[in-house]
Amino acid sequence: VPAIRPSCELCDSATEAVLWRDDRLRVVRAGDADHPAFCRVIWRRHVAEMTDLDEAGRAHLMHVVWAVERALRDTVRPDKINLASLGNRTPHLHWHVIARFRDDARFPDSVWSEPRREAAPRSWPEFDERLRAWLMRELGTGTG
Amino acid sequence: VPAIRPSCELCDSATEAVLWRDDRLRVVRAGDADHPAFCRVIWRRHVAEMTDLDEAGRAHLMHVVWAVERALRDTVRPDKINLASLGNRTPHLHWHVIARFRDDARFPDSVWSEPRREAAPRSWPEFDERLRAWLMRELGTGTG
Repeated sequence: VPAIRPSCELCDSATEAVLWRDDRLRVVRAGDADHPAFCRVIWRRHVAEMTDLDEAGRAHLMHVVWAVERALRDTVRPDKINLASLGNRTPHLHWHVIARFRDDARFPDSVWSEPRREAAPRSWPEFDERLRAWLMRELGTGTG
Repeated sequence: VPAIRPSCELCDSATEAVLWRDDRLRVVRAGDADHPAFCRVIWRRHVAEMTDLDEAGRAHLMHVVWAVERALRDTVRPDKINLASLGNRTPHLHWHVIARFRDDARFPDSVWSEPRREAAPRSWPEFDERLRAWLMRELGTGTG
């Protein structure tokens, strides 16, 4: 049983749309109206930094991040992928994998910047199902 | 000779403070007054996304990113490390490796967010020299 920090929202995962998981991490959909094609890869243990993991842990986490990047590129054909691991508010290791479009609310600024415009509405039929199928094909069924 | 895009500021590297380099990438100091302990790891070839690299290229680039993260943690003892590969304005693959402090200009927001306060001034004696020595110890002399 891993350590759970009661005040950490990434240790408590009750309401997420999980797209893939194994015993070390999970992939969740994290999009909103401004940036709908947005996934998060969340390490299970409560650690803060990539260099707090051992080499095998880092390699596994990034292998899943690249799989999510490929799944998003294949599913939504973005103009750019943005990757980030910040954790200033929630220092529990996680990666943002975000599909960006030239007409989204903030492009070419970061998704953490002030909006520049009303986002062009976008949606993809069966987004969750396509991501799940893509990740299972690329990563296997997981074990978590 | 790699392809050079004349309009790409990361293909043209004349004025940078290079901390380490090899034939595939370079590490440069990218700090400003608000965020002085900020490095960039820049892939040499003009490609946009991590999944445009092959697996060996991705592994090499991230190996150097982790080395820079360790060098920054050891040298400036930050409250948090922020990692990001965005490239919305300059779609030439590069990573930001940023040491964050609770009293910096934007914490806990991203460095791309609006400032919240005047940054507490920070500097470290021989920052470049310490980073260079750390990276050479961890990564070797490079070949670029």
